[in-house]
Amino acid sequence: MNIDGTAWRTIWLEPGGCSVGVIDQTQLPHRFTTRSLRTCEDAAEAIRSMVVRGAPLIGVTGAYGLMLALQQDPGDAALEAAFDQLNSTRPTAVNLRWALERVRDRVAALPQAGRVEAAREEAEAIAEEDVAMCEAIGNHGLEIFRQLAAARPAERRDSPFQVLTHCNAGWLATVDWGTALAPIYKAHRAGLNIHVWVDETRPRNQGASLTAFELGREGVPHTVVVDNAGGHLMQHGLVDAVIVGTDRTTRTGDVCNKIGTYLKALAAHDNGVPFYVALPASTIDWTLSDGLTAIPIEARSAEEVTHIQGRICSGTAAGEIATVQLTPDGSAGFNPAFDVTPARLVTALITERGVAPASEAGLRGLYGGADQS
Amino acid sequence: MNIDGTAWRTIWLEPGGCSVGVIDQTQLPHRFTTRSLRTCEDAAEAIRSMVVRGAPLIGVTGAYGLMLALQQDPGDAALEAAFDQLNSTRPTAVNLRWALERVRDRVAALPQAGRVEAAREEAEAIAEEDVAMCEAIGNHGLEIFRQLAAARPAERRDSPFQVLTHCNAGWLATVDWGTALAPIYKAHRAGLNIHVWVDETRPRNQGASLTAFELGREGVPHTVVVDNAGGHLMQHGLVDAVIVGTDRTTRTGDVCNKIGTYLKALAAHDNGVPFYVALPASTIDWTLSDGLTAIPIEARSAEEVTHIQGRICSGTAAGEIATVQLTPDGSAGFNPAFDVTPARLVTALITERGVAPASEAGLRGLYGGADQS
Repeated sequence: MNIDGTAWRTIWLEPGGCSVGVIDQTQLPHRFTTRSLRTCEDAAEAIRSMVVRGAPLIGVTGAYGLMLALQQDPGDAALEAAFDQLNSTRPTAVNLRWALERVRDRVAALPQAGRVEAAREEAEAIAEEDVAMCEAIGNHGLEIFRQLAAARPAERRDSPFQVLTHCNAGWLATVDWGTALAPIYKAHRAGLNIHVWVDETRPRNQGASLTAFELGREGVPHTVVVDNAGGHLMQHGLVDAVIVGTDRTTRTGDVCNKIGTYLKALAAHDNGVPFYVALPASTIDWTLSDGLTAIPIEARSAEEVTHIQGRICSGTAAGEIATVQLTPDGSAGFNPAFDVTPARLVTALITERGVAPASEAGLRGLYGGADQS
Repeated sequence: MNIDGTAWRTIWLEPGGCSVGVIDQTQLPHRFTTRSLRTCEDAAEAIRSMVVRGAPLIGVTGAYGLMLALQQDPGDAALEAAFDQLNSTRPTAVNLRWALERVRDRVAALPQAGRVEAAREEAEAIAEEDVAMCEAIGNHGLEIFRQLAAARPAERRDSPFQVLTHCNAGWLATVDWGTALAPIYKAHRAGLNIHVWVDETRPRNQGASLTAFELGREGVPHTVVVDNAGGHLMQHGLVDAVIVGTDRTTRTGDVCNKIGTYLKALAAHDNGVPFYVALPASTIDWTLSDGLTAIPIEARSAEEVTHIQGRICSGTAAGEIATVQLTPDGSAGFNPAFDVTPARLVTALITERGVAPASEAGLRGLYGGADQS
């Protein structure tokens, strides 16, 4: 997507092909900087510290991370160690393991001399496939938006089509286009009059910082609201559709996504607002049926709750990016990073292969009867 | 309640009786300071800028504000002007108008010479009644907590009784005790093993700053969570009850409270967790039946969404209280301050007169058949 007219991706092979460039998402929206990853540890640290985040981008970063590891040591033991190191960085997203397994399976049977090149090819293939899948999701979602917009009462058809999204499932969470934001970009480029309510998404504010940054730089009309506001907006007819991404979806259609997604799904259900989840196949965990009990939920540092980062507005340190404490000294915080939205609250899943009900039958209808894991 | 062992109220008549002291809540939890209100404009500004906040405390501050106005000019025109000035500061809470009308009605028929003293008496009476009502709410709520705690499965009875609360309906929102927090303080003092999940409550973080401050200073075990987390906690059996305050409740039991309350009520309903609303009679609006369409929802400054206040953690300005920007330049914010939870999602109302279903019959059962407005 564009940043002030220039096309960017979130991750790229740097000249020479031996290092990988990424956008440092911890500095957004206030500072646009990039980082060069040269070792497997660089990649693992980038995932862990959320320099890169978003399930699809984590997967691609992991894949390149294996390539970086093999550059230093192409042996079997080093490959396994790198696999484990990268796989342990974030426990909830399923794309990471999927991408790591894909690269490992590709290189494991090769002689050591050919492994780096093969890993590079596989990582690049994963990245290109991600772009294609996201664009396909965008096209399928655009059709849904067009139908919903046209089905509105006549007196509302001249006003913007209003979409609410939670967290960041935009191009910054993938390689390009995004998942949940892909239909929004497609709709905006197709001339649909669209406006996006951007959930702030505490504790890390990926909505207020990343989604708002993306939409603003691409020129899509949007308004930031606190996570508490979505129910009120829906009660008052100000939301035509909700669309979110997912870090892992069970084969039965239970959706694990950023903490708070479940609350928005409840509000959408209570107000008759359609609730969509956009996802590439790599996010489906075919081994799981009950999301609520089976998906491990990452508990991150309490400091993400008790503190927040922003740009200081005035005083001697004005303009600096700083962390401020929000809570009293001595008050503890708890920080579960994801929740699970039961399939019953999901209107439909939007995948690269098309749109399906959030159910095992729906997903099997798109992906066939065989176990895809 | 106590701050590190010393008993405080939120508002008091200063020596001499001609000015009013309040705790400056905009500086909490990082700095404990008080302010002296000497004029009606001081009182209006304290309400507007949220130096004082919380429906009951706003009412008492308004009442004292009329006294301060009459000290400067006890005439009828000045009385009406002060009434309008104070009444326009916050549109959603109904206690404010109720308290202002009570003082105005008390003084209007008196000769000008006796008005200040009468206003002082009436404001003090409102404050004392508020304390008594809050303590009664605490006692009624304590009984509910005791019953719920005892009704838990045997294997869970040794673990803390877990209560989730949203925003601040504690003693800082009233004169003393609080509404939603009164049962918690009563339970803690009665020796019930209680733990409180404190919703951060964006955008102004009254939970993370004020509720956490109150509970910590009184020694009540608590943990701060982001507003997004409550649904997940309830899905996993980590919440035994939700209790919140209200800024206005219709005679049919629809509850207007801090934005995001509705989302927690939906999650409680979806998970079979009882959802209680604690309120004094002054918060009931007997003139309204449909909360969703009839209660005006204050839209506050978008800067409360796009910016946040905290204590700088490091660097040259460490320790200073600063405002930081969270969103990209150019991204707009929208800030509805309250939402309405339909009566169907409320397990019961806890009032100073006892506990009632959230319905017209329930409220009439406590307050009688006559219009109480």
